[in-house]
Amino acid sequence: MNADREEIAAVYSGGEQGGKEEATQAYTAVRRGASDETNAAPRSNSPLRIVALGGLGEIGINCMAYEYGDDLILVDAGLMFPDADMPGVDYVIPDFSWLRERADKLRGILLTHGHEDHIGALPFLLREFPAPIYGTALTLGILEGKLLEYKVEADLNPVKPRDTVTLGSFQVEFIRVAHSVVDGCALAIRSPEGVVIHTGDFKLDQTPVDGEVTDLATFARYGDQGVLALLSDSTNVEREGYTISERYVGEALSDLFPKCKGRIIVAAFSSNIHRVQQVADVAAASGRKVLLNGRSMIANVRIARQLGYLKISDDLLMDIRELPHIPREQVCMITTGSQGEPLSALSRIAMDDHKQIKLEKGDTVILSSRYIPGNERTISELINHLYRRGADVHHEKVSEVHVSGHASQEELKLMMNITRPRFFLPIHGEYRHLVLHRRLAMKVGIPEERCLLAINGEVVNFYNETACIEETVETGRVFVDGKGVGDVGEVVLKDRRHLSEDGMVLVILGVNQHTGEFIYGPEIVSRGFVFEDESQAYLQTAREMVREALKELSVEFLADRDEVRQIVRQTLKRFFKKSIERRPMVLPVILEM
Amino acid sequence: MNADREEIAAVYSGGEQGGKEEATQAYTAVRRGASDETNAAPRSNSPLRIVALGGLGEIGINCMAYEYGDDLILVDAGLMFPDADMPGVDYVIPDFSWLRERADKLRGILLTHGHEDHIGALPFLLREFPAPIYGTALTLGILEGKLLEYKVEADLNPVKPRDTVTLGSFQVEFIRVAHSVVDGCALAIRSPEGVVIHTGDFKLDQTPVDGEVTDLATFARYGDQGVLALLSDSTNVEREGYTISERYVGEALSDLFPKCKGRIIVAAFSSNIHRVQQVADVAAASGRKVLLNGRSMIANVRIARQLGYLKISDDLLMDIRELPHIPREQVCMITTGSQGEPLSALSRIAMDDHKQIKLEKGDTVILSSRYIPGNERTISELINHLYRRGADVHHEKVSEVHVSGHASQEELKLMMNITRPRFFLPIHGEYRHLVLHRRLAMKVGIPEERCLLAINGEVVNFYNETACIEETVETGRVFVDGKGVGDVGEVVLKDRRHLSEDGMVLVILGVNQHTGEFIYGPEIVSRGFVFEDESQAYLQTAREMVREALKELSVEFLADRDEVRQIVRQTLKRFFKKSIERRPMVLPVILEM
Repeated sequence: MNADREEIAAVYSGGEQGGKEEATQAYTAVRRGASDETNAAPRSNSPLRIVALGGLGEIGINCMAYEYGDDLILVDAGLMFPDADMPGVDYVIPDFSWLRERADKLRGILLTHGHEDHIGALPFLLREFPAPIYGTALTLGILEGKLLEYKVEADLNPVKPRDTVTLGSFQVEFIRVAHSVVDGCALAIRSPEGVVIHTGDFKLDQTPVDGEVTDLATFARYGDQGVLALLSDSTNVEREGYTISERYVGEALSDLFPKCKGRIIVAAFSSNIHRVQQVADVAAASGRKVLLNGRSMIANVRIARQLGYLKISDDLLMDIRELPHIPREQVCMITTGSQGEPLSALSRIAMDDHKQIKLEKGDTVILSSRYIPGNERTISELINHLYRRGADVHHEKVSEVHVSGHASQEELKLMMNITRPRFFLPIHGEYRHLVLHRRLAMKVGIPEERCLLAINGEVVNFYNETACIEETVETGRVFVDGKGVGDVGEVVLKDRRHLSEDGMVLVILGVNQHTGEFIYGPEIVSRGFVFEDESQAYLQTAREMVREALKELSVEFLADRDEVRQIVRQTLKRFFKKSIERRPMVLPVILEM
Repeated sequence: MNADREEIAAVYSGGEQGGKEEATQAYTAVRRGASDETNAAPRSNSPLRIVALGGLGEIGINCMAYEYGDDLILVDAGLMFPDADMPGVDYVIPDFSWLRERADKLRGILLTHGHEDHIGALPFLLREFPAPIYGTALTLGILEGKLLEYKVEADLNPVKPRDTVTLGSFQVEFIRVAHSVVDGCALAIRSPEGVVIHTGDFKLDQTPVDGEVTDLATFARYGDQGVLALLSDSTNVEREGYTISERYVGEALSDLFPKCKGRIIVAAFSSNIHRVQQVADVAAASGRKVLLNGRSMIANVRIARQLGYLKISDDLLMDIRELPHIPREQVCMITTGSQGEPLSALSRIAMDDHKQIKLEKGDTVILSSRYIPGNERTISELINHLYRRGADVHHEKVSEVHVSGHASQEELKLMMNITRPRFFLPIHGEYRHLVLHRRLAMKVGIPEERCLLAINGEVVNFYNETACIEETVETGRVFVDGKGVGDVGEVVLKDRRHLSEDGMVLVILGVNQHTGEFIYGPEIVSRGFVFEDESQAYLQTAREMVREALKELSVEFLADRDEVRQIVRQTLKRFFKKSIERRPMVLPVILEM
């Protein structure tokens, strides 16, 4: 093994930068030491296969499968909120087809933390694949609320950091990490092939609000024993330096609150319990009572208080019915809606559409959250509306009222150096984050050929200290719409996208159900296309074109309804494109009469 | 006048901050000096009315009207690109209804600079309101290209900075300002009521690429003589400090280019001639030839070179046909498409869909432009695709490859202090920018009641050194779609928005054209709604509901087609909402048979 590593390092160390060569040799030297230790993994019989069903190539729907022999475990099962080009979809979850084929191997599901993009798909997953769930207390607390809503039962097993869970050939240790939700963990997943460190979402916060720092000692212990692969959080890889501590927000709020004369509304993510703690503490210090608003905010605060993660005294909290009786400068509302979501409480307040809560000049609104990419417009609109109400608005682009929960470059490099993995695989990011994170790994000296890159569906195969990516399995997205799952599939979604672009034109033809003869139409009805009253002549031309096209068809052809639809569609699409450069959806409707 | 000002200042100087009081007094003292000078405006007979047809409350469609007696001038006439909730619209222009009512008063249109949001609506405006246009050479050069495209004639009058133009009661001096397009100007608009400074878009760049600094001397001259009102650019009011110089980008590119081993593609806004100049210079210095790409890039570069604004030697430029023969490290392409616009050259290159230009590992793409709000997703996708092609990507969030063209807070305050206006009116911004800019004006000491705030349509009325906003006129947006103007009006647009959300359901009823009796249907056809093959039972239920609802109608009711449509619509909308929480568009189609 030593010779291999030296050889490979030598081959690749004549790389682009001189520094890289030195770094590689230093790295190799360190690893050489590790392989001599007695905890080296015994030669195993089976490969360890790791495949992402979601999360590699997008930020959301995180779901990673680890397979060894007859045992399979999943790490996380999250959801994602739809793009603008997925109209009418409520959310997106991973396609579990691959899992379906090997459902009997599923030993358990491990959760890193309680964010929607890590646990949101579980209600759907568990309906079909009931399996024991392992996670920290708050993570399971947040999950329980969802399961209740979907009326799904589950076998929930709470763990503490540094607990180890055995699932078939796997032993998994939970390792405390700091993040923007309390009780987050990384996982050290041991199989006969070796130990894989799966970081989950993390940062290195040296002054976390609850005092629970990222457990570097445990990571270092694994690093000393030998880590086969590190799978690490790529979200903030574009940011240099370190991510600021969560406590910094509390300080910024402490400076800000005393300057506010009227009511204060703080919008935050309901899962960010530390943020809520800080706001509550600053509110108390400024003589303000706290009003909670938003279903998930109230739910998460309740769970967190029950489990002892959030300390807010009962007399600090107020009910909305007390609101009219409390002086404005004694009110601090903590609410959801920071992304400008339509119909959220904050949006309605901003539009002056909320029955009980009105904003006045002198009130302050603090958006203590990040601009999730894609939401810039709705947040911008929200801010404009808040200003129209006369409020003052603070948000991350003008005040230090939010910090990220993900590690920046220096922390990511530290994680690599402390775990000293043989292989590196970036996770939790869009394609560019994965590419950049891989480059970062090469910078600290992990040899290029061991810095892997995989996207959803690509199976990373580890066997006897080698790794390869040779196989791709079926993965995809399932759209959840209204009360169903998969009710709105790719086909329907394409229709909708088409509709919104260029409107639609219906072509109604009536056919004699006995003779097959065309006896009615073509009648043309349009929506979202041209003004009907101004374009009768134009539609008349379109009708003529269809009649002509159908006249030329043979009898057999006419009998085939699908063929007729095709002809009508083609004829009109060409016509519209040529004459007015539009591409409305053409919908032939053939009625048997 | 002196007494008035002192009195007002005294009343308002007991304001929120002690510093404000001093500032107000200092300000008043300076103004007092100004009013004693001989250039004080003579008492006039008419009010000066200023109203925005666009640009106050949004970033885009800038168009400001100045009216005095029988004379009317317009400053700029821009367009805006559509939101996600304006599907199928190509762009948006101001509604000129108000102008239509007083078209005979229009003496001329003055242009501050050549950006789309200041000149884009002119082809449409000029078709209906031919009026002489005044602007600098490059501004008119860019405009000429558009007019040619739309086949619109115009009376174009090029001016130089410090030229004065007389239009009826108005004398307008053009004042050089620095911005992200060359040849931008502010306007000093004099009428018998006084002088109004209209800044247009500006920054104070102390090292502009062409050496043409913002002409502070002229602004100061007006300040000394007495300025009635300052209308100033609010875009960057949320940014503290100063905006970095354009030259800084050139330095960043100089550092970056030598490190690039393969081809370099720089995406930039075609109107940013200085940016193009710097890229070309750095390319030349690195031994690279320049390939221009994108219709507007090629057009604007041609105009700028012709007018002498851009200096690129012919042998620096290459043709796309030479591309295969030139070593990769000698190529620098300058292209449009920085916003990830679908079908743009850069998007196609990123998707590996461009016939002549392929990216390889080692190539570098520099997005030397800003993230226009609303485009974060498309730009993000673009970057991911570029990484998939193996390219390295630099953009404003990770490199210093772009700077803003708009003044930050310190420059905005300087403009106020140097023009010392009696009144302040923020322009060119969303609502929150206008609010914050007004507050900034109060900070430098302009008395609160003279810091005005208006949105589109609100008429600011100046008369004998007083100002009031008492009237609102009709303004709005017109949607340009395909080849027409206003072809897609509000009605049609609402249809489209509706369609994209929840799909649509057609209900087809056949009625005997002689007896009025219902003889066919209801046939239900859906698109973008539910899978047809899985939901026949459901649609059957829907059909039954409609039959029941129609059975109960009286004969006279049935004769009224509109009433029938209403009933059908209501019945089904309620049904869908209740049963599956969906709101598809319901389209009753009644066929006479």
